[in-house]
Amino acid sequence: MESIDLDKLGQRAAAVKYELQKLTTEKKNETLLTVAGQLEKDAGTILEANAQDIHKAEEKGMHPGLVDRLRLTENRIEAMAQGLRQVVRLEDPVGEVMETVKRPNGLRICKRRVPLGVIGIIYESRPNVTADAFGLCFKAGNAVILKGGSDALSSNLAVTASIRKALEECTVSADALQLIGSTDREITSRFMKLNQYVDVLIPRGGAGLIRTVVENSAIPVIETGTGNCHIYVDEYADLDKALAIILNAKTQRIGVCNACESLVIHKAVKGQFLPKLAEALRQAGVEMRGDSQVCAIVEDAVQATQEDYGKEYLDYILSMKVVGSLEEAIAHINRYNTKHSEAIITEKQENAERFLTEIDAACVYVNASTRFTDGFEFGFGAEIGISTQKLHARGPMGLKELTSYKYTIEGDGQVRP
Amino acid sequence: MESIDLDKLGQRAAAVKYELQKLTTEKKNETLLTVAGQLEKDAGTILEANAQDIHKAEEKGMHPGLVDRLRLTENRIEAMAQGLRQVVRLEDPVGEVMETVKRPNGLRICKRRVPLGVIGIIYESRPNVTADAFGLCFKAGNAVILKGGSDALSSNLAVTASIRKALEECTVSADALQLIGSTDREITSRFMKLNQYVDVLIPRGGAGLIRTVVENSAIPVIETGTGNCHIYVDEYADLDKALAIILNAKTQRIGVCNACESLVIHKAVKGQFLPKLAEALRQAGVEMRGDSQVCAIVEDAVQATQEDYGKEYLDYILSMKVVGSLEEAIAHINRYNTKHSEAIITEKQENAERFLTEIDAACVYVNASTRFTDGFEFGFGAEIGISTQKLHARGPMGLKELTSYKYTIEGDGQVRP
Repeated sequence: MESIDLDKLGQRAAAVKYELQKLTTEKKNETLLTVAGQLEKDAGTILEANAQDIHKAEEKGMHPGLVDRLRLTENRIEAMAQGLRQVVRLEDPVGEVMETVKRPNGLRICKRRVPLGVIGIIYESRPNVTADAFGLCFKAGNAVILKGGSDALSSNLAVTASIRKALEECTVSADALQLIGSTDREITSRFMKLNQYVDVLIPRGGAGLIRTVVENSAIPVIETGTGNCHIYVDEYADLDKALAIILNAKTQRIGVCNACESLVIHKAVKGQFLPKLAEALRQAGVEMRGDSQVCAIVEDAVQATQEDYGKEYLDYILSMKVVGSLEEAIAHINRYNTKHSEAIITEKQENAERFLTEIDAACVYVNASTRFTDGFEFGFGAEIGISTQKLHARGPMGLKELTSYKYTIEGDGQVRP
Repeated sequence: MESIDLDKLGQRAAAVKYELQKLTTEKKNETLLTVAGQLEKDAGTILEANAQDIHKAEEKGMHPGLVDRLRLTENRIEAMAQGLRQVVRLEDPVGEVMETVKRPNGLRICKRRVPLGVIGIIYESRPNVTADAFGLCFKAGNAVILKGGSDALSSNLAVTASIRKALEECTVSADALQLIGSTDREITSRFMKLNQYVDVLIPRGGAGLIRTVVENSAIPVIETGTGNCHIYVDEYADLDKALAIILNAKTQRIGVCNACESLVIHKAVKGQFLPKLAEALRQAGVEMRGDSQVCAIVEDAVQATQEDYGKEYLDYILSMKVVGSLEEAIAHINRYNTKHSEAIITEKQENAERFLTEIDAACVYVNASTRFTDGFEFGFGAEIGISTQKLHARGPMGLKELTSYKYTIEGDGQVRP
């Protein structure tokens, strides 16, 4: 492995950002289409590189689920290319005039949307993220530095080489996309300190990765992803809706951040609802972990621990708790949630409003599945992730969330008295 | 000094944030007015505490400029109270509906403005910040934890006690404002790791303080303040405007972040402009540090170093550089600036537009003094600081910038197919 000069890499990205912010929407779209075509042309090379990663991963006994995330196929490369073509169709946020003010002294102040500049992304071994993240960052006028998971290194190098080739063909600097081609953890630590050059760092991956980045980065971070999402079945719930929503949120796709991990049930409905729910969950193969009130009704439920309530299972497991009031439900959820997506099932508008107001999360639902927390489902288009912090962006982050703004102030000689 | 349980402090702030976000605008305003009155009533006690701080500071030989910033007077306490009354008149941002979307599946998505939650502020020895920061954070529905400079500890404790007394009188939890009453640096380091409870950390002070916070905080940070601001005198400048603007930006108030620290001058106007400018700066008592072209014309200018170009003097000193083109000017400024406020003096619209687009800073000016970068001057009202980062907020940060948003999604049983 050659040694990597992170400062040079940062300087190159910081230099190219001035070129990228000036690109017209037309030029950016034309470039993205060329990149999409190039990825399709290079599919053979990319699949060969990916086969190496898969071989190594299987040799070291990687979990089949993870191997699947690592694997590329013709179809998945085609999906990467189509993803870029979708980004072409999204509105370019750069240059939007957000506000204008004329001051009494004649100054004309204008708030204009501009790219963030240089975006760093640290992610796990999903090679499709390489193209997806590039596409969104590029459309929003940003240079991007990627640090992917070690297990996907060959794949990421191949995808990056393909994209950079296309950029050069379009006479855009290839440094609009740089990959840190290293498996050295020390390099990742140093990357997080590159705040002189990198404007924002977005970690994409599990709770461990995100915690490491939050605790160690000197670059401003947008926390994404982990979702310990709750559904609260209120005293005034329509129990048929509750059943359908819980099954959907828990089992429609278990490995995603907006899947339901924990139920909170009002004691007034536990006797009527829990047996029916337990039967449905049993049939869906979901293990139930409940408090003593749950276990008293659902015989095959195991006793839940404090740890269970704080856990994002990403699996066929559901924690359950009975509460005596809406207040108690809200307090429990605010204590254990990861500020991602939370739902109440109720027919009482007053309770719904209170839940919407008092729950501290990016997305708060009434009578709908938490699985809708997604850029496409919200109508925003492709997203770079779901922000679970409150600074800058919250919830699904699309192109607008990959921009900043600046104030321009035009005068004719004004000085401050 | 009693030992401080930061976890308890964080828990109390996190608990009170749910109370604060529900306060009506009327209740918040009434409370702020009570706080203002209480500060006036407690002026005697506050001044006594401040006298202790001043005494210690003078005894240890603190620079008179810093002692002045530390000093409270009847008038300054009155200004703190008036500041709170001004905040009462600002519009409450909380609850604003920012966007609504009705999806084809019937989901009603609403983006609502909410408080950030808990805001931490680390600042230097200016006791007036204690009341100012509380007022803005409180009006935006946030709990606040303050860590002020050690030299102002007695003053800050007295101001905080007065505010907390008024809060209790209004039956608002006094923990809406907590002060870390310690001079221990170790406590400050641990405070920066309190991301479990604190949503945002805002450092207010000099470059050293801000760097320490950026490098060590696990809490999302908004960088504020340092300003190495440039004025570029273009080939097409109106030189009378240039002279007036430079004098204003450099000398109207030297110790502030939006003062001009560096000039960039097009070579086409150096011969005509520099002698006149030098004479005016000399009369204002400004030391000039220039490159060789400047020194060849201005005999009393001293040779500028690389370090000079990167320096925020906050003093009667100005660095100067001659360039051959607009491009060179932009490159120089983008290299050395702190992304705060930059100005071009030109009568050529094309050059103005290019400067506005290509300069990477929160506020970019044409033909006006950089001294206008200020919440009141922009018409936004009181501000918590000037953000020089790109995430979340850029430039003057008022009440809106002390909020986040959440999505509420209302359905009637929707599940994801």
